[in-house]
Amino acid sequence: MKDKKLKIIPLGGLGEVGKNMTVYEYDNKILIVDAGMMFPDNDMIGIDYIIPDFDYVKQRADQVVGIIVTHAHEDHSGAISHLMEHVHAPIYSAPLTNGLIKNKLNRRSFAKEVTLIDIHAGETVQIGPFKVDFFHVCHSVPDGVGLGIDTPAGLVVHTGDYKFDHTPVDGRPTDYWKLAEFSSRGALALLSDSTNAEVPGWTPSERVIEDGFNRVFRQARGRIIIATFASLISRMQQVLDVAKGFDRKVAFTGFSMLENSRIAKELGYLQYAESQVVSIETALSMPESKVVLMVTGSQGEPTSILGRLANGTNRQFSIQAGDTVVISAHPIPGNEEAVYRAVNRLMEKGADVVYSEIEDVHVSGHASQEEMKLLLHLVRPRYLIPIHGELRMLRQHKRLAMEIGMDERQIALVENGRVIEFKHGEMKLGERIPGGYVFVDGTGVGDVDRTIIRDRELLSQDGVVLINLFLDKNNGTFKDLEILSRGFISQEESKELFDELRTRVIRLTTSPAKNMQKEIQNLSISYLNEETKRRPFIFVSITKV
Amino acid sequence: MKDKKLKIIPLGGLGEVGKNMTVYEYDNKILIVDAGMMFPDNDMIGIDYIIPDFDYVKQRADQVVGIIVTHAHEDHSGAISHLMEHVHAPIYSAPLTNGLIKNKLNRRSFAKEVTLIDIHAGETVQIGPFKVDFFHVCHSVPDGVGLGIDTPAGLVVHTGDYKFDHTPVDGRPTDYWKLAEFSSRGALALLSDSTNAEVPGWTPSERVIEDGFNRVFRQARGRIIIATFASLISRMQQVLDVAKGFDRKVAFTGFSMLENSRIAKELGYLQYAESQVVSIETALSMPESKVVLMVTGSQGEPTSILGRLANGTNRQFSIQAGDTVVISAHPIPGNEEAVYRAVNRLMEKGADVVYSEIEDVHVSGHASQEEMKLLLHLVRPRYLIPIHGELRMLRQHKRLAMEIGMDERQIALVENGRVIEFKHGEMKLGERIPGGYVFVDGTGVGDVDRTIIRDRELLSQDGVVLINLFLDKNNGTFKDLEILSRGFISQEESKELFDELRTRVIRLTTSPAKNMQKEIQNLSISYLNEETKRRPFIFVSITKV
Repeated sequence: MKDKKLKIIPLGGLGEVGKNMTVYEYDNKILIVDAGMMFPDNDMIGIDYIIPDFDYVKQRADQVVGIIVTHAHEDHSGAISHLMEHVHAPIYSAPLTNGLIKNKLNRRSFAKEVTLIDIHAGETVQIGPFKVDFFHVCHSVPDGVGLGIDTPAGLVVHTGDYKFDHTPVDGRPTDYWKLAEFSSRGALALLSDSTNAEVPGWTPSERVIEDGFNRVFRQARGRIIIATFASLISRMQQVLDVAKGFDRKVAFTGFSMLENSRIAKELGYLQYAESQVVSIETALSMPESKVVLMVTGSQGEPTSILGRLANGTNRQFSIQAGDTVVISAHPIPGNEEAVYRAVNRLMEKGADVVYSEIEDVHVSGHASQEEMKLLLHLVRPRYLIPIHGELRMLRQHKRLAMEIGMDERQIALVENGRVIEFKHGEMKLGERIPGGYVFVDGTGVGDVDRTIIRDRELLSQDGVVLINLFLDKNNGTFKDLEILSRGFISQEESKELFDELRTRVIRLTTSPAKNMQKEIQNLSISYLNEETKRRPFIFVSITKV
Repeated sequence: MKDKKLKIIPLGGLGEVGKNMTVYEYDNKILIVDAGMMFPDNDMIGIDYIIPDFDYVKQRADQVVGIIVTHAHEDHSGAISHLMEHVHAPIYSAPLTNGLIKNKLNRRSFAKEVTLIDIHAGETVQIGPFKVDFFHVCHSVPDGVGLGIDTPAGLVVHTGDYKFDHTPVDGRPTDYWKLAEFSSRGALALLSDSTNAEVPGWTPSERVIEDGFNRVFRQARGRIIIATFASLISRMQQVLDVAKGFDRKVAFTGFSMLENSRIAKELGYLQYAESQVVSIETALSMPESKVVLMVTGSQGEPTSILGRLANGTNRQFSIQAGDTVVISAHPIPGNEEAVYRAVNRLMEKGADVVYSEIEDVHVSGHASQEEMKLLLHLVRPRYLIPIHGELRMLRQHKRLAMEIGMDERQIALVENGRVIEFKHGEMKLGERIPGGYVFVDGTGVGDVDRTIIRDRELLSQDGVVLINLFLDKNNGTFKDLEILSRGFISQEESKELFDELRTRVIRLTTSPAKNMQKEIQNLSISYLNEETKRRPFIFVSITKV
């Protein structure tokens, strides 16, 4: 038994290592930690979202003994319904996480087939050959857990997303004592969150947001509209608490905000008197100074409520002068443009807009550099595998570890799919398994690949031109020509251009051609490029009539 | 004369007010300040760049008495060659600015027709009815000027981009004394830079970069590759100075970097011994520890040298282990994704990458909050018109002004195209003139509008499907059907889908239709959407054969 290898495989991050899924494998048994979704980069055109490539676990579905979801954020839990199409093992999570997952599975109507096992931080559960200590971590959602995963090959500590908040909203600090205990038991390896490895100092406590909210509430005269993530349950609690002090009622708005607040309330993670919360309809009929509306759209997504408010396309209510809008979130990298555009548009419509640059209305849920060093000192792992971050963050995490005395050989910077093996207490990097992530577009999972994305990019750069040529079926002479375009050039400007293209194509039909379609294509590409310096996608169709 | 109005019209910014151009009009004479270009937002697909709408000045071309360019950055000077196609008046700028503009005009081969007049900070020039005091401002390019524009209607101070750097690289601080003199003469209005109105404190001196560079150079063993803007002449000087101390030669790489360094050297704005600079060919043949390569691409642009190095597509040289890459710039909002992707890829290729998050290798060229307050105290204007910023920044600028005692009625938050009128010392907001900005795509100026962009967006979301139906010309019965697609779904996945679509289209042809094209279109849209939840662009062509 002692001779068996423990394998760890980080999977699924889009440029971020092990962000969304990690596989632990021992004695032919597999434990999956997290199954999250990713949002596409700006150049992944038309993609709805991205999930990890489940191929490795699909092929070993009968070896999977359990799935643990560390917390309820989408980047750790959002692909779980896709995973459960392939894997049949129980899910072990804290009650709030399970509650939100269950709701998600229900929507895809296979909740009944899935076993969800509630665990609580502080418990130890044997899952196959893995003896897992669940310990509490602070994060921007309640009920986050980190894991001590013990096998005969050694004890591995897996933090999930964490910070060391001394004054968390729910009063439960990260479990320093368990981390120290891992150290005394001897931690073979630590896999930990690198998100803020570039950020000096210590991440502020969630508590500072209350001061920020208090200042905003004190100044607001009209309605207060607060946009945040629907999964930020602790933010909901803070808004409820502050609103109470200012004698304002709170209305949750939008499907996911309503659902999540309901589940969190039922499970005891949101605490408020029933009279403190009203429906949106009631809120809209109340005096403006008496209400707070909590909405989604903190990333400026045009289809979210905040996005629609900014664009003036929200049906139920609109921004009016005197509204105070609070964006209680940071823009996720890549979303800055959308967020700040929404801010400007809301201001144009007369709202006061408060956002994290100008007021303490959001703090990060991830540990900064000093916290990362504290974690390393508490756990004293033999090996460090920085995860949850782009390569640039993993490198900074490594640098921090070396600053506090770790040796370069004790730290593995790996890419997704790299198998990390532990045997006799030694770490070795193994093979790299194929597959990274899979695009989800509409109902299609994996039917859009890089080629399709590339075509979409080309189509979007300069549009399309369609050339339909009709030739006489008897003698091949020219009969008719139709030129259409979309996204290429405005109608008025195109006339002269297409008239000349027409003349050139017709001229071409009079001389013999080996491959007329190809020749028309080339002619059109070079003529249009010469005249406009653009390269539209050109479709040529030749029909004999 | 005293009764005449002074009009000021901020123009051209893309979401930013008066960023790229401002029109001053008095007694039917027009002075234009700056003519810059903007970079497109991520959703302005396929657009190369954006220029202000020159319609207002085109229609009054004979009234234009002069153009002033405050400094040589693209967002203030990059549209000058487009402007000079419509306007025939002299350009007044500092020597370096004029040198770089001249080079730009030469490339479009109409430099000869344009009169460039060198002015120096400290000089006063009468341009038509406008008596202009040019004063020195610190910014991240040498030779930046601010303007005191005097007319019988009053004195207006226009800062351009500025910061109050106490230890600037070229030893020339911003002209505090002139600003104070404006105050004693009585400044009617101040138009000033709002870029950093959200940033507390005081922008660090350009000097801190030298410390950052020194630390980087001390640690680097191999080549040092520094990416920055080609217009950041003072950064070039800093690199040359630090490189000299470490006995490294500098090679400028890329067209604009070479051109700009040559011009700056000729005009005395770059100072170095000839032996300090080598060609890229020479640099590549030297020991790695002896060279610095200065390249473009600090925004991660895939076609720039740094972009090509990151993607492994640069011809002349590639990244090798041991290279240190310094990104000496902040990502411009919207470019974060591209920049950090380049950072990660350079790291994957073995480079150490140093960027502004982890080392002092860039500082902003714009004043922060305390500097903006200092400016207001120095100038003591009757009216403030915050410019150079998005609405959210202008609002913060206004808040700062109110904090130091200005009244709300003294501050105008305006949008581009709003005419601000001054008469008898009073400010009044006038009409809004149409036009904001114009897209440039390839050689086309203004032939791509929002509709085209929208079509490109649609094309890019889910691709295109082409349906070519052939019917018998005698009886209209079905003869043939061709279905093609691009960017929609992968080939393997499309077969079944298109087979079924085929069946449905053929079935439709058997029943009489009022508008068969429309019906096929609708059928295809709804069938494909139902099956894939996607909405490709569908072109239907029906031919009778």
